[in-house]
Amino acid sequence: MAYPIPNRLVRPLIRTLLPYTPGEQPKVKGLVKLNTNENPYPPSPKVLRAVRAAVDGRLRLYPNPTADSLREKLARFHGCSPDNIIVGNGSDELLEMAVRCFVEPVAKPRNSSRAAPSRSKHAQHPANNIVQYFTPSYSLYPVLADMHGAIKNPVPLNSDFTLPTLPSLKRGGLWNFNAALTFITTPNAPSGRGYSTAQLEALCQVQRGVVVLDEAYAEFADENALSLALLYPHVIVSRTFSKAYSLCFLRVGYFIAHADLIRAMHKIRDSYNVNGLGQIAAETTLDDIEYYRRNFAKIIATRNWLSKQLTALGFKVVPSWTNFILAMPPHHPKTSVDRSNRSQTHVSNAKDWFLQLREHKILVRWFDQPVVRDYLRITVGTAPQARYLVKVVRKILATG
Amino acid sequence: MAYPIPNRLVRPLIRTLLPYTPGEQPKVKGLVKLNTNENPYPPSPKVLRAVRAAVDGRLRLYPNPTADSLREKLARFHGCSPDNIIVGNGSDELLEMAVRCFVEPVAKPRNSSRAAPSRSKHAQHPANNIVQYFTPSYSLYPVLADMHGAIKNPVPLNSDFTLPTLPSLKRGGLWNFNAALTFITTPNAPSGRGYSTAQLEALCQVQRGVVVLDEAYAEFADENALSLALLYPHVIVSRTFSKAYSLCFLRVGYFIAHADLIRAMHKIRDSYNVNGLGQIAAETTLDDIEYYRRNFAKIIATRNWLSKQLTALGFKVVPSWTNFILAMPPHHPKTSVDRSNRSQTHVSNAKDWFLQLREHKILVRWFDQPVVRDYLRITVGTAPQARYLVKVVRKILATG
Repeated sequence: MAYPIPNRLVRPLIRTLLPYTPGEQPKVKGLVKLNTNENPYPPSPKVLRAVRAAVDGRLRLYPNPTADSLREKLARFHGCSPDNIIVGNGSDELLEMAVRCFVEPVAKPRNSSRAAPSRSKHAQHPANNIVQYFTPSYSLYPVLADMHGAIKNPVPLNSDFTLPTLPSLKRGGLWNFNAALTFITTPNAPSGRGYSTAQLEALCQVQRGVVVLDEAYAEFADENALSLALLYPHVIVSRTFSKAYSLCFLRVGYFIAHADLIRAMHKIRDSYNVNGLGQIAAETTLDDIEYYRRNFAKIIATRNWLSKQLTALGFKVVPSWTNFILAMPPHHPKTSVDRSNRSQTHVSNAKDWFLQLREHKILVRWFDQPVVRDYLRITVGTAPQARYLVKVVRKILATG
Repeated sequence: MAYPIPNRLVRPLIRTLLPYTPGEQPKVKGLVKLNTNENPYPPSPKVLRAVRAAVDGRLRLYPNPTADSLREKLARFHGCSPDNIIVGNGSDELLEMAVRCFVEPVAKPRNSSRAAPSRSKHAQHPANNIVQYFTPSYSLYPVLADMHGAIKNPVPLNSDFTLPTLPSLKRGGLWNFNAALTFITTPNAPSGRGYSTAQLEALCQVQRGVVVLDEAYAEFADENALSLALLYPHVIVSRTFSKAYSLCFLRVGYFIAHADLIRAMHKIRDSYNVNGLGQIAAETTLDDIEYYRRNFAKIIATRNWLSKQLTALGFKVVPSWTNFILAMPPHHPKTSVDRSNRSQTHVSNAKDWFLQLREHKILVRWFDQPVVRDYLRITVGTAPQARYLVKVVRKILATG
């Protein structure tokens, strides 16, 4: 008897899916790791002690399914109710759940298109099928839409990565004010550009579907939009303990929103989605917030110093409200560039820079994607790491 | 301006969803917790030491996204390739992903029906919409089907919780041999009944869709069906570190299957779905497997002793291959039973027993569901816990 062919058992939607590629987690030691926006400082000693102290026989027990004490502490921290909070296995899990919770898949999923949709494409699909986001932003969003069978509506940011104004969005005709779900990375990644709460609020006020303000880097920003999640019934703010609170390893993120939206998301949450040590680490983090605020200040100072240095060395640096910077490196002699093939006056060679930095044991991120292809995304490390980076850049420029 | 009403932003499918209810994780201390099938023994001292030693500055870094070293160790342990393995945030996450990976949602989700479907219902829906499972079994499956918008096909087990034979499944007309996804809890939960690999293989051989053999309790069983996942291209075996390996708190489960099925599931996996300390704990567990095997033997001995004792006290105990037993308690005088309203000769009062045991600080599980309503599900604890349970049962029977 012939058995089923395994590939044919997979849904066509998944068979053709291009999955998200996370940044490299290198296995070789000794690299200066400035590629995935991790915090260069360890969690506070109190957090490490509390987690270590919890590693005992209790590991045999299920964790609290709804992360109750963490939600209570977060509620006090943010001035809301625990009913406004859902905790996830990293905020990625919650972003994925938001798509499943608020967006209808189309009956016959279309093949994904890389082109921005036209007005006529909108006409074919009701707004309740649409996942909308600016480009460039977190490159997970289109993958989440594709795997759900939703319609993607990517809308370009301005060329300097600022948010288009409301009138320009209306004029442009691409933006969908009724989209079931809109993701806004704020501050933006991968550019680092920050957005004012006033501008985000103006956009939220005219949006009819759910808006997720994805604030993974808010702690490094001049402003954040948390208040909007508590003010508007359709606005969700996403936060994470990964970046600012040095807990990538333990996977804790959360959403803040109207209790009705949160209640709906709890319904599709895995029963025990947040591991117990992650819950303990996050709770203790909130008890030692001053430790982290001192680190934010250090990272911001290093970011500003590094931006200035790289600018002086010929990089075009996007102003950053995050713990990373996006920078277009200058041309250097070693690279052969086919100038005929470039429309931009600033001829870049970001991939060569990426490879040369790697030769010097510095790992940054280069995205082979439109708009950002000519940039490097550089995580802000410690001050010594930033000084080493600047030293290596000088060397490359000199010997280039 | 009026803002959107949050409930209307939620998909109708989710709005009407009845979520899964996990077993109670009590906040009061001092209860003998025999309700969620946790292992009564702590993780091995080696595992605790390894996890404690890993609680340092590395928490700031992302964990390995694909749990590579854990998959390599599991592959050696099971005699397969790492390409045959995907690790999840508990096996629950993978069960949910299997639905999204292998089952097409229906265009307009029907309201869920509690009744078993008739042949005519099948006629309405192609097999690629169907999630199939026996009842009773893990009560998460229907919730996963509902939240995806799939069609549920629940098919009753025999009344003694054994698997229907192939001829009887064919005769019965309820079973769908083309269902996109079939979940089989083996050994069965909540009954504890074990199934022979031969019988499971016979069923797999005639099944045309994906079959998940959910072996959450396999380590306590006389047989397991892991070999089928490596033999048949459409068979997946699900395992977990929660129960047998005392790691509920850290959320690690895995699937073993044909590399093509595993590859498809990786595509829809969250980038960093398994927390780093969970990966370390699971890896170290495999280095100290003898410690756990000694515990399996103790739990099995206690299970057999407890089954014998409860049988002697008038309980009807289902033979168990797991770390729990399903037992129908005898009638005792305190309970007023409306006999006219019962069809069974064995008049039960399981809920009263549940409440009375709780008064004596023993927490077991009672399901308010058809077929199992007259039973208690009792996790096998330590030998002293089992002796205490028997003592309390005697007391309840005596004082009635």
